[in-house]
Amino acid sequence: MSTLVSTLDDHWRATNASAAEAGLSPEEFAALNARWGDVTAEPGAVDYAEINAGGVPALWAVPHDVGGGVIVCMHGGGFIGGSVWTHRKLFGHLAKAAGARALIVEYHHTPMHQHPVQVDQCTDVYGWLLEQGVAARDVAFSGDSAGGGLALTTVLRARQRGLPDPAALLLLSPWTDMTFDYPSIETNRPTDLLFGDPSPADLHGLAALFLGPDGDARDPLASPAFADLVGMPPMYVQVGGAEMLLDDARRLVARAEQAGVAVRLDVVDGQQHTFQFDAGHGDPADAAIARLGAWVSPLIG
Amino acid sequence: MSTLVSTLDDHWRATNASAAEAGLSPEEFAALNARWGDVTAEPGAVDYAEINAGGVPALWAVPHDVGGGVIVCMHGGGFIGGSVWTHRKLFGHLAKAAGARALIVEYHHTPMHQHPVQVDQCTDVYGWLLEQGVAARDVAFSGDSAGGGLALTTVLRARQRGLPDPAALLLLSPWTDMTFDYPSIETNRPTDLLFGDPSPADLHGLAALFLGPDGDARDPLASPAFADLVGMPPMYVQVGGAEMLLDDARRLVARAEQAGVAVRLDVVDGQQHTFQFDAGHGDPADAAIARLGAWVSPLIG
Repeated sequence: MSTLVSTLDDHWRATNASAAEAGLSPEEFAALNARWGDVTAEPGAVDYAEINAGGVPALWAVPHDVGGGVIVCMHGGGFIGGSVWTHRKLFGHLAKAAGARALIVEYHHTPMHQHPVQVDQCTDVYGWLLEQGVAARDVAFSGDSAGGGLALTTVLRARQRGLPDPAALLLLSPWTDMTFDYPSIETNRPTDLLFGDPSPADLHGLAALFLGPDGDARDPLASPAFADLVGMPPMYVQVGGAEMLLDDARRLVARAEQAGVAVRLDVVDGQQHTFQFDAGHGDPADAAIARLGAWVSPLIG
Repeated sequence: MSTLVSTLDDHWRATNASAAEAGLSPEEFAALNARWGDVTAEPGAVDYAEINAGGVPALWAVPHDVGGGVIVCMHGGGFIGGSVWTHRKLFGHLAKAAGARALIVEYHHTPMHQHPVQVDQCTDVYGWLLEQGVAARDVAFSGDSAGGGLALTTVLRARQRGLPDPAALLLLSPWTDMTFDYPSIETNRPTDLLFGDPSPADLHGLAALFLGPDGDARDPLASPAFADLVGMPPMYVQVGGAEMLLDDARRLVARAEQAGVAVRLDVVDGQQHTFQFDAGHGDPADAAIARLGAWVSPLIG
């Protein structure tokens, strides 16, 4: 095997093929998932510190020479995987592009921990950050995939607790609709390297693990696509044109626009789920992250 | 391709095969080399900060809850590759095992920079560390491969500058002899996945890049195998039984013993060059790092 050409596409192909094999053990899945971030180039000039953020583990990713802004980052992984370490380079690149610090949340995974513990943990971290003296107007939330949904639901949960909204949202291939009731889930099946054929990866199964036996796929705190989006902070959504979750992003953006939210959508042709992981190696990823940074930088810090 | 089984052996096979292909560009080599550390599991509970250490870039790897000891770490890579980032997880594991901080030196690479700039930079970092108030008795030097040689030569250079010796040396598959005039360079060729056939990887060529046109392979500051080892700090050497550099380690240890140095050698059967990179995944690597940590911990901090 050669690692010379390893990209996110390669990683998704491997994940897909591995999922298609009967008997992928939890340990094998974890080993494969831990390699997700290997495709991302080292950002450099970013320092990292693991902390206890109000009772929740989190990782600071602090670029050298940044302003006062903070991006609270919710990682993806279908709620069953991903970590601050798989995502430290991705969010490190984003933090550098934004000229801000990133605070990446190590929330609990399913199936050991079900909804709503994840959104509660993310909200705990946000509340802790505000207690440290960081102003909400200097904070953005970001998330990829499952973390994109969490970024939205954390705004909702924070409101329930009387906390102010953050200044902006950066959503990368967000998963906001646990019903998957939209066309691209089928029309993009031939082009989606992760969830497309031959993978038996069961998106509904991931949702069920998250929601638990009594869960509701239309609960706005689980599927923010069904939430009242009025008053949401400015929102920048990026999604790959080749991925099955394309219409999740499109519908979210349409509903946000109807609710009067300032929203920007980039559909990046031919790109896969969370394509920004190729940061440092690939033009589409680097250009996308540069756009995110340029957009959010004036809004925070 | 599947990343499920990726280990250091896989990485060396890929490096060897890639080197065997004509026309591996410097960019392709750099891309492959940057993946070296991907095989290592995330240590966790270690913070990282890039600093300027007396004019030389370096990376602190600071485990949570450590004592006052510091391990100054010289990374490997044949002097043409490797970085603080390829090696942060390896040295993070070592630091955790030792209960000490690691300070990893980002010295200049060949062919842009030739000997003795590398040993001077490592010595600059050591001098800077002492200026910060860290006592030499609380410091160990560690290095793998080319970095193992640098760990030794930095002691020699430090003495020339009037600096005190560190308390201990931890050498992993050290490259200390640029003549390669020993049996294992041929006898282990069939078992060495990195330097063995079919690789045309030219160890003498690496040495020439380091030494420059007027260099001497027996210069003790380049090949510490030829140095006067009397009075060297206690030294713990680990080497893979399958690697071509096996006799470099054996001869170094024999000469150190003759010079009255307290020395320990582990030849780990069947293991490859810098096999400790499998830390977190493989018993031989984890056991080896645990032994290094247990040995050095009482000597520093």
